[in-house]
Amino acid sequence: MEPGDALTEALRAHHPAAAATLSPLGQRVWFPRGVPAQAAEAAGCAVNATIGQITDGRGGALPLPQLEALAGPLPAKELFLYAAQGGRPDLRDAWADRLRPLGGRFSRPVVTCGLTHALSLCAELFAGPGTPVLLPYPAWGNYAFMFGVRQGAQVRRYPVLREDGGGLDLAALDAALQALPGPAVLVLNHPSNPIGYAPALEDAAAVVEVIRRAPHPLVVICDDAYAGMVWEPGLQVDSLFHALSALDPARVLAVKVDGATKELFFFGARIGFLTFGCEGPAARALEDKAMGLARASVSCAPSAPQAMILRALADPGLGAEQARLRGVIAGRYRALKAALAAHGVPFWPFNAAFFALVPVDGDPQAARRSLLAEGVGVVAVEPSDALRISYASLVEGDMDRLAAALAPRARRG
Amino acid sequence: MEPGDALTEALRAHHPAAAATLSPLGQRVWFPRGVPAQAAEAAGCAVNATIGQITDGRGGALPLPQLEALAGPLPAKELFLYAAQGGRPDLRDAWADRLRPLGGRFSRPVVTCGLTHALSLCAELFAGPGTPVLLPYPAWGNYAFMFGVRQGAQVRRYPVLREDGGGLDLAALDAALQALPGPAVLVLNHPSNPIGYAPALEDAAAVVEVIRRAPHPLVVICDDAYAGMVWEPGLQVDSLFHALSALDPARVLAVKVDGATKELFFFGARIGFLTFGCEGPAARALEDKAMGLARASVSCAPSAPQAMILRALADPGLGAEQARLRGVIAGRYRALKAALAAHGVPFWPFNAAFFALVPVDGDPQAARRSLLAEGVGVVAVEPSDALRISYASLVEGDMDRLAAALAPRARRG
Repeated sequence: MEPGDALTEALRAHHPAAAATLSPLGQRVWFPRGVPAQAAEAAGCAVNATIGQITDGRGGALPLPQLEALAGPLPAKELFLYAAQGGRPDLRDAWADRLRPLGGRFSRPVVTCGLTHALSLCAELFAGPGTPVLLPYPAWGNYAFMFGVRQGAQVRRYPVLREDGGGLDLAALDAALQALPGPAVLVLNHPSNPIGYAPALEDAAAVVEVIRRAPHPLVVICDDAYAGMVWEPGLQVDSLFHALSALDPARVLAVKVDGATKELFFFGARIGFLTFGCEGPAARALEDKAMGLARASVSCAPSAPQAMILRALADPGLGAEQARLRGVIAGRYRALKAALAAHGVPFWPFNAAFFALVPVDGDPQAARRSLLAEGVGVVAVEPSDALRISYASLVEGDMDRLAAALAPRARRG
Repeated sequence: MEPGDALTEALRAHHPAAAATLSPLGQRVWFPRGVPAQAAEAAGCAVNATIGQITDGRGGALPLPQLEALAGPLPAKELFLYAAQGGRPDLRDAWADRLRPLGGRFSRPVVTCGLTHALSLCAELFAGPGTPVLLPYPAWGNYAFMFGVRQGAQVRRYPVLREDGGGLDLAALDAALQALPGPAVLVLNHPSNPIGYAPALEDAAAVVEVIRRAPHPLVVICDDAYAGMVWEPGLQVDSLFHALSALDPARVLAVKVDGATKELFFFGARIGFLTFGCEGPAARALEDKAMGLARASVSCAPSAPQAMILRALADPGLGAEQARLRGVIAGRYRALKAALAAHGVPFWPFNAAFFALVPVDGDPQAARRSLLAEGVGVVAVEPSDALRISYASLVEGDMDRLAAALAPRARRG
């Protein structure tokens, strides 16, 4: 039996929904015991000739002075040498410590090159040609590109919001799940990009119940990029991953995609995490498969941001500083809402993340281009007929100018 | 016509070998005009609400103090905010400037998350299920994993060296090319991992001639990870990419994979480059397709190492410091060769890169494990029956202990 097939057998025994939803590539892949695995075994050797990198012979780095002068104060070996496949073990454990208080089953997080990489690994693991993949509508455009164009999966859509503005369209999600012909992938994204919406607590609980009743095994990918970025009371703040990971392993595999990009405001780091909602042999099998695909796509993740994030997570003052920066965004959120109201600009319900959607008359690309000519940059989100405003990247004083520019283009009534 | 198909048509007109060798995914993919493309258009806007990142409203970063304290002296926006898709334009141009003196046609280099990512993008672009892919033997294990396991391509092998030790096995490469049933992928890796071998000048020229006579269109991927790491006179130092890119575009597409990982001794950076051996519309079409696949796999590359590498490349003293570090490795090379001779340890011909191969009696994995017990870490390179020594990571004083440990396991005669 090939190593990948043995892992798939372990999943069949310990988490049948995972085995039922793996793509053909997901079924056959494993983490090869090549140079990185053998180097890990040799970590304690006095004479370590395993890895193709230049060192001082004792595991230290020998960087070029032109690069060393631009590096931060952390030890050079943590910046210039390779990091472990799957991520630094201490960073993986530190991230797991953040998930623990929220409960549920979860695997040891695998470090990825940003959240896109984690989502891309999910697409490879679970979406083969023709696999039904349920995406939110509207959604970040890269979902359809990754799952549909790259993997050749069959993209289906469920509307996130009810047309009457009364919260999540739970009936549409239920209908989309009931209409599935077999095992499938479901992507959840709360708080959402591009809507900028977090559900009410009761809607969030209902999502879990709708998923519990789905007729076929499901992988539910929780894209938690904007975890914690919620600007009104009474809304779901915690990821649904934790509740979903408590469901029947024969029916549901929950997957968590999150990272430092937004949560630690470290956009340039390219450090994400991929965590599976299971434990024991199933968790080890999925980690091994994910690390194999990471090895085949980018090898290890960048070293310096891993070292920096590890230190930051250990700082007792981090939470307060995160809250302070979230407060800055919340202030921008309130300023945008006030400016839109003052100029009579309509908008989709928004209460979270970095975004608002403003519906426009006519072609949103034309509206976007005409705004560029006025020095205002927004994004035309296809396939919806709205412009996405990323208010997190504007100061409060810009909101009036933005709303005034949007007003003549916005669609009313 | 879909955007990806239009790019493929451009290749058919301007570089037929590229069109003939694209995989089904390579044919259909393109760089989507989503958020990053629209954000690039809005770069000069006074009110820029395109990208989902928190800024000071004027394009500056607002990092967490816990992370900022660990960052280097470069401006925070170049470390903490997203870099452009496909890489910083100034870095792409700076890398192109390094290629220019060596001649040939080449596209604007696309920045990737390390060389593995560049190779992985090549595998997606050119190797579909069943595509013949000619890999060196022996080779870095990740090639077969990326092309065979992940893409489902048909892996074929050509021996790098003649059995009599007399240089490249040109006849075997020629026979492997002549036996191809149709368009195919060929991977060249000079200097090589794991052999640690650079060809003689006349052998290198003969490789180009053998490729020129191949019966079917070829993509030739030059894995130039160890560019310039050549420790004896009379050997090929420059990549074959430049000569290959001058061949008939109806017959050959040359592709260059290189990066900062080894050339700038910045292993933890995860910055590679992907460059195609063509210009004009063909170059733009391939860049667009490669950037689309990069968008779908990791999005942008990490920001800080791009900023650091850009500065280092502009430093007039960089070349001398690179030469100094290469000199350190060359000293380790000579020390290893002397130690192996002193202990009568046989080895494959080696003269370049970071590696030597020592043939062993019996199972190389068993030999490797028994060496671990003596505090000596080496790598068992399957499928060959040798141990790989990465002498670049040892100091000269370690070589005698290493050779003494290898001596009883080495295969003689």
